[in-house]
Order: sequence, then C-alpha cells, then structure tokens
Amino acid sequence: MRNVLPVGKQLLRLSQQPYKKGAVCAASAMSGNKFRLPDRYNAQPSVWVEYIQLALEHKPLNLGQGFPDYPPPDYVTNGLAEVTTGENVLLNQYTRGFGHPRLVNALSKLYSQLIGREINPQSEIMVTTGAYEALFSTILGHTNPGEEVIIIEPFFDCYEAMVQAAGGVARFIPLKPKKTTGTIMSSDWVLDPAELESLFNEKTKAIILNTPHNPLGKVFNQQELEMIANLCKKWNVLCIADEVYEWLVYKPYKHIRIATLPGMWERTITIGSAGKTFSVTGWKIGWAYGPAQLMKNLQAVHQNCVYTCSTPLQEAVARGFELELKRLGQPDCYFVSLPQELEAKRDYMAKFLSDVGMVPTIPEGGYFMIADWSALEKKVNLSEENDRWKDYRFTKWMSKNVKLQGIPPSAFYSEPHKPLAENYVRYCFIKKDENLQKAEEILQKWKASS
Amino acid sequence: MRNVLPVGKQLLRLSQQPYKKGAVCAASAMSGNKFRLPDRYNAQPSVWVEYIQLALEHKPLNLGQGFPDYPPPDYVTNGLAEVTTGENVLLNQYTRGFGHPRLVNALSKLYSQLIGREINPQSEIMVTTGAYEALFSTILGHTNPGEEVIIIEPFFDCYEAMVQAAGGVARFIPLKPKKTTGTIMSSDWVLDPAELESLFNEKTKAIILNTPHNPLGKVFNQQELEMIANLCKKWNVLCIADEVYEWLVYKPYKHIRIATLPGMWERTITIGSAGKTFSVTGWKIGWAYGPAQLMKNLQAVHQNCVYTCSTPLQEAVARGFELELKRLGQPDCYFVSLPQELEAKRDYMAKFLSDVGMVPTIPEGGYFMIADWSALEKKVNLSEENDRWKDYRFTKWMSKNVKLQGIPPSAFYSEPHKPLAENYVRYCFIKKDENLQKAEEILQKWKASS
Repeated sequence: MRNVLPVGKQLLRLSQQPYKKGAVCAASAMSGNKFRLPDRYNAQPSVWVEYIQLALEHKPLNLGQGFPDYPPPDYVTNGLAEVTTGENVLLNQYTRGFGHPRLVNALSKLYSQLIGREINPQSEIMVTTGAYEALFSTILGHTNPGEEVIIIEPFFDCYEAMVQAAGGVARFIPLKPKKTTGTIMSSDWVLDPAELESLFNEKTKAIILNTPHNPLGKVFNQQELEMIANLCKKWNVLCIADEVYEWLVYKPYKHIRIATLPGMWERTITIGSAGKTFSVTGWKIGWAYGPAQLMKNLQAVHQNCVYTCSTPLQEAVARGFELELKRLGQPDCYFVSLPQELEAKRDYMAKFLSDVGMVPTIPEGGYFMIADWSALEKKVNLSEENDRWKDYRFTKWMSKNVKLQGIPPSAFYSEPHKPLAENYVRYCFIKKDENLQKAEEILQKWKASS
Repeated sequence: MRNVLPVGKQLLRLSQQPYKKGAVCAASAMSGNKFRLPDRYNAQPSVWVEYIQLALEHKPLNLGQGFPDYPPPDYVTNGLAEVTTGENVLLNQYTRGFGHPRLVNALSKLYSQLIGREINPQSEIMVTTGAYEALFSTILGHTNPGEEVIIIEPFFDCYEAMVQAAGGVARFIPLKPKKTTGTIMSSDWVLDPAELESLFNEKTKAIILNTPHNPLGKVFNQQELEMIANLCKKWNVLCIADEVYEWLVYKPYKHIRIATLPGMWERTITIGSAGKTFSVTGWKIGWAYGPAQLMKNLQAVHQNCVYTCSTPLQEAVARGFELELKRLGQPDCYFVSLPQELEAKRDYMAKFLSDVGMVPTIPEGGYFMIADWSALEKKVNLSEENDRWKDYRFTKWMSKNVKLQGIPPSAFYSEPHKPLAENYVRYCFIKKDENLQKAEEILQKWKASS
C-alpha cells in the first residue's frame, strides 16, 4: 500500500524539518527594508496554512479542507493516464493559452445549453489554473485602484486579498440567519435588501456572488438573484458569479445561473471548476465564461501571469465533459449521482451534529456545513487558547483535545463582522462514510465525557 | 492514429469559428468605458497569439514556438499515468500550496548539491504553474510602484509586461554582437559594462538575468556573471535568475548559477522549469528557489493568485527527479543525453542556415538559434507586408510564401531598441530530424528559385 496517504505523510515529514540558520544570516546581509512585501499584498498566512499545520501536529480527524477523501470517477483518472502516453505524446506540450481547444469546445457545448445562448469557445471562455486563477484574472482584470467590489459574507477568503492586490476597496455585507433555533436551512440566511442597496454607488465596479455558497450551502433563489441583478443593472456593475459548486445542489433546490437573468449575460463573468465538478481538486483546472468584451480583460491578466494551463489535464477534463454531455440529467450522469450521494452524507452529518447539541444549518448545496456550537461552550476550555475570536479557540481546542478538526468561519468575514461567526464551525462532508461515522463517535464520546 | 496532432487540428477548427454577434450587442449595453482594461495591463496580443494564428492560416513548417515535437522520456509520461490511478487516488486532490512535499524535497536534494548549500524544501523553494508563474510571483512580489527593473535584451516578452503590472519601470540594455560576419557564437553577444553600470541607481530593485539565454543561446561566463553580481551587491539589488534552460548547454560550455557566486545567494531568486528539464512544456510545472526572506514575498503573491499547483503533475515530476538524481552526470542521465542529442540538431541547423546564405549565431545553450537573413533580402518581397519592423515582415512573408515559420526577435526588445533586431529571425531546433530536414529542403528550394 505504498503511497496510500502520501500527501499527508509527506507534509508531516516536511513540517518536521527545521528552518536552517542560513536564512537568518542572509536576512542581515540585505540592507534596510528594501525587500519588504509591496503594500498590495498581505503577508499573513491564510487560515489554510495555519489549520493544515494544526492538523499535522495534532492528527485530528480532519473535516477541515474541502476535498473528497475517496476516488473520483474511474473514467476521469483513467482518462488522464491515457492522454499522456502512447500516440498522444504531443499532449505533453503547450496548448492554446486561453484554453485547450477540445476543452473550450466542450465547455461551450455544455454552457450554451445551460445558459440558453451560443457561447463562443474562442472569445467567451477562458481556462485557468483552477477556479482560483479565474477569480484572480477576473478581479485583477476588472478592478482599478479605488474602485469598490461588494463581497457577501461569509466569503471564500481569497476574494478580499485579490481585491486588495488590484488596489480596489472591498465593501462587505453579511448574510444573517432569520432564526437561530429549530431546523435552520441555508435559505434562512439572507441579505438585507436595504443594506445591500446602500453599498452600491458611483465607485462600485463589481459584486461577487457565490452560489451555491461556501460555507453556508445557500443556493440563491430567483427572487434574491433578481434583487442583485437589478442593482447591477441600475449601477452598471459587473457580477462575478463564483458557481464552482453548480452541480452540488440537493433536492428540491435548483441552481439558477445569474447570467441567465434578463440583461445579465452582458455584465456577468461566471466561474467554474473541474476540481469540484469531477472531484479532482488537485488538478487545478477551472474556467471563466462571459461576453467577449469582458473576457478580454481576463485574457490580458492570464497571458502575463500563467499564460497557459496544463495540456494533459485539460484534455482529460474535456473527455470527461464529452462523456457526461451524452448523459446530462440522466441518473448515471456524475453531475446527478454525486449530489445524490452527498445528500445522504449531509443528512447523516446534520443528524450527528444535532444529536450532540450543535445547531447545524442544513445546506441546500455545496459540501460544507456550518454549525452553532455555543450550547456546548461549557464542554470546551476556551481559555487554553489565545486567539482573538472564539471560533478559532473552539476549533483549535477541539483539534487538540477532541481530535476533530473544523474550520473557524470568522476567517471568511471582514474584521468588523468577525463576531458574527464566533459561535460557528465549518465541517466538510465530502468524506468517506467511515470517516463521517468516526466523527460521530468522537463527538458522542466527547458529549458523554464529564 | 486518432489524436496524433490533436492540438494543432483543434486550434485550426477553433480559429475557424466566427465571433458571434451577441458580443457586439452586449458591448453596447455597457455604458461608457467603465469596463476598460486597468492601466497596469497591456491589451495587445502577444507575438505568440499572432504567430500561432499565422501558422494556422498558412500552414508553414513551424520552427516558431519552443517545444519538442517528439516524445519526452517514457518514464516521465508513464509516471504521470501511474500516479493518477489505482491506489494513488488521493494524488488527485489538493496538495500543499507552496509545493507538493515530494517535489520540493526532490528539488531540495538537487539544488542543494548544485548550489553547494543546504536548501530548505519548506521555506526556500516554491512550486509554480510553470516557470512563467515563478517569474510572475517573483516580479510582482518584489516590485513596488516606481521601482526599476533592469532587463537585458533580447528578453522573454513577459518580463516587461510583468514589471508593468507591478507598477514598476523597466530599464533596458541590449546584448550586442562584437562581430556580424564569419562564425558568430552566442558568446560574441555582450553587454557594455559601462552602459550596464549606468542603469543602476537608487531606484533599481532588480535585474533579470536569463542564462542560458533565449533567444541568443548565450551562456553567461564567470567574468560576465561577476560583473553583474558586483553591481547587484554594490546597489543592494535583487537578481532574478531565469535558468529554465539550465540543462541545455553544449560542450565545452558550462552553466554557472549566479546564486553560487560570493554574496549572491542572499540576493538571488532562481527559476527553473519541469517543461524544459523533462521536455514536457505542456505540464506547466516550474519553481523558484532562494533565501527564505525573499521567498516569502513570492508566497504572498502565489497564495492569492493560483494558491496551489497540480498534484499529479508535481508527483510525476518529483519521481522523474528522484530517478535522475541517482544517475546525475552519467551518460544515461536525461540531463546529459538531451543536450547531446540537441547539439547535433543545432549543428545541422547552423549548417543549413549558413548554406542558404543566412548568418546564424551558434548557441552555446538553449534550443533556439537566431540568424541574420539580411543577405537574402532581395529574395523576399517585404513590401507585401505592412508591419513596422522588417523582421516581422520577413517572418510573415516567409510563412506565407516559403512555408517556413520563425519568430521575429524584435518582439523581445523594447520599442526604442527594436531596430537592433530587424535583420534577424529566431528558429527552434528541438524538433524531429525529419522536420529539420524538411526545413533545409524548403530553404534550399527557395534559394534555388529565381
């Protein structure tokens, strides 16, 4: 069983290597502060760096980072094996910078059908190094210094850093729960329409909409999307639609693409992910699509940042889409079977979190669940941790003492709004059933302890 | 023979699709110039976009873009097939953001040996989406608005765009040939030391050094490197060493890593490429290494741009290095056998270019050759082309009429220095022998024509 858990083992070994002294000597040889980080960047390690390290040190059952711990579909991984060998050797060399032709053609077929208009594979789609680079190219390609970008909280933490790197100004609005007891659905988390409207002004360049939403699992409904769309049209604002969880929606909810609303195609850039679509987060293939005149800005950023993406991975993703396109909407389509499989995991997690006394928000989409743990505060010793925010203290204490790791959601809020997240934890449920069962056992044992 | 030339065929099909009318309507719906490209980016299509399109339209024998048209080593491509399937399924998920542990460990072993100091895999190496993203993270992470970056001409065209994106100011100095007749080696192209010194000042933040050099093939010698190093130390300037062709050096020349010069490790970031090292340009895996306090700036850029790179590709590259590390410097080592193979191709191309009346510069490294075609000017009709620079007119005319494509080197010069390149063309010789023979036949036939 060589290499069964190579990434984890390797990370551990790596983290145990001491930093060497040379670095200190080198630092002193450089005069002054000339090589400090430019102001547009943030030197703080992200929550991911911190919590991956925490997991290495304390070896909890890790429900933190969002990726499946079980195999992607066979045909996807076998597909990659096929493209790199034999007669396909040229697929190991550079392909077209804005997207491998076979992949942009497949994406064009898929999204033309879903959006209800013909999407040009050459000018209206760009392939990126993960959805992450699609966000980067969109935000950097469309934000001038001083322009404002509206971000809905909680948010994927890179949004804010990318706006800052562009010299833009992030303006925040939190989703707030309408209720905090009983069965709470992610649809109970809502925007205040007046508060949202108050953020729009002459300087507003864009709003970032993440639906299905990470970490709440909220699938924005028609009415909510229309409210956002109307404000975008009124203020001539770009909508950056992060729809990487587009296929992970649970019955009876439906994912609505905001680009399909009247007057929205021409002001929307939509972002997708092969990692989320085919359960291969490590492939780092994503894309953006939208009208050509908006996509040009992304091309300008992309061509001087990574220039082009991996050819074999793009080819394998293209073949995956070609297969699924033939059975779109049918029971054997992965985009149908995966959410079915995940729905059972969601329900299982919601039950065991409730059983132990937490109050989960039941997600309508995505593969994360947030839960209010405040009823259990007496069972943790938060004074043993030094972090400013309670959710950081809770998650760290739990990792160390109960050996179950989640992510503190205040990482996904702006500084003034972090208190809104202090009573919550985020868990990921795209995990093997046996690991979800282990999580339940860990929590039950903890609950039973004095 | 399905998919034998899929990229080329797909590109052609893609380029034949018309832009659709929707884009025009959408443009008119957006008011004013609000969505123009931010000033830090350049909207002009690069020479690559233009010449790939030219090749599609006129179907010349293409010696333009730099990638092999023959297979990479079997163990590399088979290695990728292995990592993605079977028991290794977790290698399809996210790995460490700053580099897959197995790969940074392999790179640490390799470069610790080559640089002569222990390089920390965790803090002194970062893996990137190709050397391209390593350049991006280095330049963006170390250039503040108004700071100057010295670029040696001719230069890889993204350098200038990246400095511009950072708000920096590029300062240019050309390599100039000491002679223009007889046998010219790339070592005959030199910097004027006084001119170089005159570029350094209080605002100078970095110099970009590309050795072995694209497109000249120049391998900077000890004396030249010392001159650059002394100026870097005198002015407290960072050296960005683009060494992606580090293994492609021909006898009796030796690649010297500037980071090994006294006092230079602490002010050098060196960039390498799996694409060049293993002949897999389409994998887009590169890296940067240097002292931890300089690497931190790269990490800050990387973590908010792509965050992490492809896990399966990194694993396969790591395995490739592990194999080669065991036979480093031995005849069966790919880093020894590949330059030997290429040396014969270089000599073959130099001969057929000379035979036809061009004056090639014999490269000591890399897989490009520039040649002065001015003696043949009467055999081309430059008035049929409209470009400002003669080398653009020459290469376009040749692609269309003689069906052999090269790249115009003035693309690699700043505007005021472009005239220096007008008499040259760049050809790539990492191509099958049969294609180099075809190139010879094409040129001979052209020469014989009236």
